[in-house]
Amino acid sequence: MMRRVVIVGTGLIGTSIGLALRRAEFAGKITGIDQSAEEGAAAMRVGAVDYAVVSEYEAVAACVEADVIVLAVPVLGILDWMRRLAPVLGPGQLVTDAGSTKRTIAEFAGPLFGGAGQARFLPGHPMAGKESGGAARAEGTLFHGAMWLFTPTQEQGELERVWRGWVERFGARAMDLDPARHDRICASVSHLPQMVSTAMSAMFADLFAEAPELAGDFEAIGGRAFREMTRLGASPYSMWRDVAFTNTEPLAGALLALEQRLAHLRENLKTPELREEFRKANAFRSRG
Amino acid sequence: MMRRVVIVGTGLIGTSIGLALRRAEFAGKITGIDQSAEEGAAAMRVGAVDYAVVSEYEAVAACVEADVIVLAVPVLGILDWMRRLAPVLGPGQLVTDAGSTKRTIAEFAGPLFGGAGQARFLPGHPMAGKESGGAARAEGTLFHGAMWLFTPTQEQGELERVWRGWVERFGARAMDLDPARHDRICASVSHLPQMVSTAMSAMFADLFAEAPELAGDFEAIGGRAFREMTRLGASPYSMWRDVAFTNTEPLAGALLALEQRLAHLRENLKTPELREEFRKANAFRSRG
Repeated sequence: MMRRVVIVGTGLIGTSIGLALRRAEFAGKITGIDQSAEEGAAAMRVGAVDYAVVSEYEAVAACVEADVIVLAVPVLGILDWMRRLAPVLGPGQLVTDAGSTKRTIAEFAGPLFGGAGQARFLPGHPMAGKESGGAARAEGTLFHGAMWLFTPTQEQGELERVWRGWVERFGARAMDLDPARHDRICASVSHLPQMVSTAMSAMFADLFAEAPELAGDFEAIGGRAFREMTRLGASPYSMWRDVAFTNTEPLAGALLALEQRLAHLRENLKTPELREEFRKANAFRSRG
Repeated sequence: MMRRVVIVGTGLIGTSIGLALRRAEFAGKITGIDQSAEEGAAAMRVGAVDYAVVSEYEAVAACVEADVIVLAVPVLGILDWMRRLAPVLGPGQLVTDAGSTKRTIAEFAGPLFGGAGQARFLPGHPMAGKESGGAARAEGTLFHGAMWLFTPTQEQGELERVWRGWVERFGARAMDLDPARHDRICASVSHLPQMVSTAMSAMFADLFAEAPELAGDFEAIGGRAFREMTRLGASPYSMWRDVAFTNTEPLAGALLALEQRLAHLRENLKTPELREEFRKANAFRSRG
């Protein structure tokens, strides 16, 4: 049922999906589409795709012939491709995606997919990544042990089951969530850590600028926690702009909650309230 | 010149110092003092100390005979030991410490050490640790590649040079800083990450309590960033209470700066200001 796959966006995630398919012994044809000829060539070089396509015409032609199309670009790009592909696809074809937010995508899919004469759409979100993207950093084992969230709002058919089967052969654990709930949870456990890391990196940039003679040593002084807290400072704006744009309210809520928590600590550096926060954090880390 | 060493506090840092001394082929006698007989016994079992002492009387007796005394307890405990030991020690003896804040300790040392007929004091701070303490987690290589900050305010003598030599043989990089500057820098690069991790862990504890059926999966959904951001949530209150108590103003300043930065992101999730913060964070991560 799945013989021809098209991966739209051969960056870190798209190329890793191609490599994971090959690792899981997918024997069909994989075509990669990327607006950057270099990224497409890199994905082909590492064996993630058989063909790399740049031109709009060839891209749409490849999708028209595909059984499964995986959209692995930033969220607003996914919406673009959904709008562009829906009119040229039909029954027996499945579109799925790897976007970081799901409510907007699931709503958008409603009128475009799943109806009579339309292709199907399965919103997906592999919880894997790195602070820096690109085909060159892709790995066929990237999803091993990771969660792969799905937020279906339409009845599931055979192609959805086939794709879920491949996801499990990637070594990922599939889980279904309501799209709005997905976005609220991810706002806290995934999008908030990114914003904290961006804010701390930007804050340290200012601090280092004030003490240039020590700048080279601050990281050594801070040690492991400093590196961990700022690692995601390298993440690309292009991806996170779309996350912030399509998950604004839940993310703003998570940020405000953390701001209030930090202010509470700040106002209680010398009171027993500090112990309460440490007690709660200790219990959280040692749970289960 | 250094034949007898006493380590006060055989937790993670104190026991690691004993192990590092042995790895660097220190052949003299090492006595460990800890209020917990178990911690002392554990330090002796792993070979970090030759003797473990619990009683007040034996502890002071061991210090009186030592060439170098290393205070490796939380900051307020260090102040206690300084006050207790100063009257019974004399010239030819060096006290040094591993406390996380240095301004209070350096000020406290002023009248007690370094004068005529007094022992000497060298404030120190190895930038190494783990989220969970205890002798059982100690390692002789813990300081390898780490910074070991010193904040001397008195003229340096031969014993100070001897101790600095051992620190370098531990594989650490020694660096001297003014005590107040040390505390301001550590407030941002070391103490702030701890408070953020505590706040995020406590925040997630509340979040998980609201969705108990998903609690086991939130960590898998959040992935590596989630684990990194909450790792220090396991850190002990006993140590950080003293840090917060003796570095209140710089730490409050660092917390407020981060709160403002997060609020700025929150208010600009849909504006080009978000790009500016990502640009600054990207540049910070790719510096050098």
